[in-house]
Amino acid sequence: MAKTTLTISSKNYSSWSLRGWLLAKFSGLEFEEVVTAPDDASARAEILLLSSSILVPCLRHDGATVWDTLAIAEYLNEVMPDAGLLPADRIQRAHCRSICGEIHSGFTTLRASLPVNLKGHFPGFKIWSRAQADIDRVCTIWRECLAESGGPFLFGERTMADAMYAPVVTRFMTYDVKLEPRLAAYASTIMAMPEMQEWIEAAKVEPADIEELEVEY
Amino acid sequence: MAKTTLTISSKNYSSWSLRGWLLAKFSGLEFEEVVTAPDDASARAEILLLSSSILVPCLRHDGATVWDTLAIAEYLNEVMPDAGLLPADRIQRAHCRSICGEIHSGFTTLRASLPVNLKGHFPGFKIWSRAQADIDRVCTIWRECLAESGGPFLFGERTMADAMYAPVVTRFMTYDVKLEPRLAAYASTIMAMPEMQEWIEAAKVEPADIEELEVEY
Repeated sequence: MAKTTLTISSKNYSSWSLRGWLLAKFSGLEFEEVVTAPDDASARAEILLLSSSILVPCLRHDGATVWDTLAIAEYLNEVMPDAGLLPADRIQRAHCRSICGEIHSGFTTLRASLPVNLKGHFPGFKIWSRAQADIDRVCTIWRECLAESGGPFLFGERTMADAMYAPVVTRFMTYDVKLEPRLAAYASTIMAMPEMQEWIEAAKVEPADIEELEVEY
Repeated sequence: MAKTTLTISSKNYSSWSLRGWLLAKFSGLEFEEVVTAPDDASARAEILLLSSSILVPCLRHDGATVWDTLAIAEYLNEVMPDAGLLPADRIQRAHCRSICGEIHSGFTTLRASLPVNLKGHFPGFKIWSRAQADIDRVCTIWRECLAESGGPFLFGERTMADAMYAPVVTRFMTYDVKLEPRLAAYASTIMAMPEMQEWIEAAKVEPADIEELEVEY
């Protein structure tokens, strides 16, 4: 069996890379990281929010090539069924998949207005109204999940939903979004995960040449 | 057990409603349609491509509420495992989920430039370059699937991927997008499905008051 790889792009900027990487870590599957060159056109488009990309994240495992984040999540759930990527209960599992799907296809204003930037911190950042509507919806989703599960993760134990919403947590930290205590506690739980800390440390030492991408937008 | 319902919005305009409805039909699950009022703000936003919606499509079944199209697809695959919503082969299943995920989160230019309009037909419609890039990517996806499976559906037999790409087929018909013979044959296969014909007939007699929505955009 050929080695298992996960292709990702910038650790500082790419929200999809972070999701795919966390999912793979949560699953317990052994994998090697492959980092795309920052001048790759497809990876650049993904970082600049211009398009989804078949290059990142992309999981290659035992003959399968999986290039969409939710597809990677479902694939990992199949091959690592004991990892708990989905809740065991049917109704909770439907809820979990619904909120994963919602963050996967929606929240375009949030993405465009508050791009992931792990090195950045902007106290007092001005949130405009359409981005605020997206933030309010995220807070509603989290509030409902945590009220039902009791936390500390959205469905009690860690699931794919926590990986899908992890980049949103970093956006809230970067852009100084105020959260009610229960949601702030959830955000702290996500930020304190060892996998998250490992990713953030790597993002902080990422070469700065990727910064030039921003000029081209 | 309470009755199973699928909430949808406009049959003429809502691509997500079409996907959810086809998935439910493919699964063989008995369900009742619930049509949202055209003046519902959330349904309106979805039709106008402003946001995803937790209202449409929304499946309610045996205590579960599932409101994202991919979540509905995975839920139906679980409760109706013999319906073949996903390919039986692990590698093909990963491929199927990857292209479903790609259409779920991407192709924003295609969506905005060529909105679903089943009553419409615009011969010689001018396609601009960024929408053309999306069209080219769809054609690549279909070409690869059909070359591997031999057709008539993307993975040979009908799967969730055919429901996910069905609105794209209708866009290509509405806006007169030229397709190579193999892809045109696939488009014809989709348009000829009894479920598709049933949906289109209903779209054609949909009251026109929903037209007023366009003015508000």
